[in-house]
Amino acid sequence: MDALERIPPRRGRAQRLVQGQTLRIINTHGSQVVDFWAFSAEDPLEFLSMEHLRASLGRIFPKAGDALVTNRRRPILTLTQDTSPGVHDTLIAACDSHRYAGLGCRDYHENCTDNLHAAMRAIGQRAPECPSPLNLWMNIPVDAAGGVAFEAPVSKPGDYVDMRAEMDCIAVMSACPQDMLPINGEACTPMEAHYTLV
Amino acid sequence: MDALERIPPRRGRAQRLVQGQTLRIINTHGSQVVDFWAFSAEDPLEFLSMEHLRASLGRIFPKAGDALVTNRRRPILTLTQDTSPGVHDTLIAACDSHRYAGLGCRDYHENCTDNLHAAMRAIGQRAPECPSPLNLWMNIPVDAAGGVAFEAPVSKPGDYVDMRAEMDCIAVMSACPQDMLPINGEACTPMEAHYTLV
Repeated sequence: MDALERIPPRRGRAQRLVQGQTLRIINTHGSQVVDFWAFSAEDPLEFLSMEHLRASLGRIFPKAGDALVTNRRRPILTLTQDTSPGVHDTLIAACDSHRYAGLGCRDYHENCTDNLHAAMRAIGQRAPECPSPLNLWMNIPVDAAGGVAFEAPVSKPGDYVDMRAEMDCIAVMSACPQDMLPINGEACTPMEAHYTLV
Repeated sequence: MDALERIPPRRGRAQRLVQGQTLRIINTHGSQVVDFWAFSAEDPLEFLSMEHLRASLGRIFPKAGDALVTNRRRPILTLTQDTSPGVHDTLIAACDSHRYAGLGCRDYHENCTDNLHAAMRAIGQRAPECPSPLNLWMNIPVDAAGGVAFEAPVSKPGDYVDMRAEMDCIAVMSACPQDMLPINGEACTPMEAHYTLV
């Protein structure tokens, strides 16, 4: 296992993956949502796409063994292991400045959309857009009438997911800065997370 | 009411809307899915976004009275009336050439993604990407375990939805060419639809 890399609270990181490498993302403190994206290294216009993934899986939530597909319906990663109860979200947009303004924030608030673009720029890449993210550990229950709620994660400290690259790609992770809703736990305190290559 | 405009089977149409105008989309034959997009006329990088809409509504399905928001979380349209049972889809990507290849199609198959881009080009515009569409009348039930199914529409001939423009925008509609799954009815025969300004 390589060294542990830190995703600071409220910040994003991008990591290049070679086909066959496995990325482990760790919920160090247990209740931190990590927004996740993946872009093809060859052509960043091809990326992990939630609306294509739901059609491919026939489910709104991915689980271990699932191929995670792009907007060209090709596997970019495989979710090989998940030590958490598997409650992740594919439905909700990354937070952005407009979201925090709507919640009453008057000043700049860190957000996952800006974190995506900053993390890509930091490795000399450019995200062509902000795709709908795979929100790891984000707990968005859907009821029988189609209602969705924003709940605290059900994961525990040290839970991790492993994803194997099915093509050379760039993975981007953002430790979600949401502190106005309990999406990162009832304490509303965004925390660090970690990742490594295994 | 203006003249009825035809959306031919398997094809797309784009229509400019001025703030305050209401677009009526008619399911002429009752079981035709119409993929729907809307882009700001001022800046097409702002568009109707399903992942932002679900967060805004707290529901995965929109209903009459709902503001339909953009990727900047501003209302672009209001769904003012819906004569159908309200079964629409916000979860599934527009069909594309990769989808039909995956279903076994060897030759070109018309698809909603190409229809979006062609319809925009036909009025001298360019879609910056293919946002996840609002799939009018598309019947994608979600079960308690998060499973999704592809079912025939529950609408009837002549059902319509009215949407009022909340900003100057471009609406794009595609009469979905899907004929390999029963998403446009058990006969798997894509049909025309119509629209008008009311």
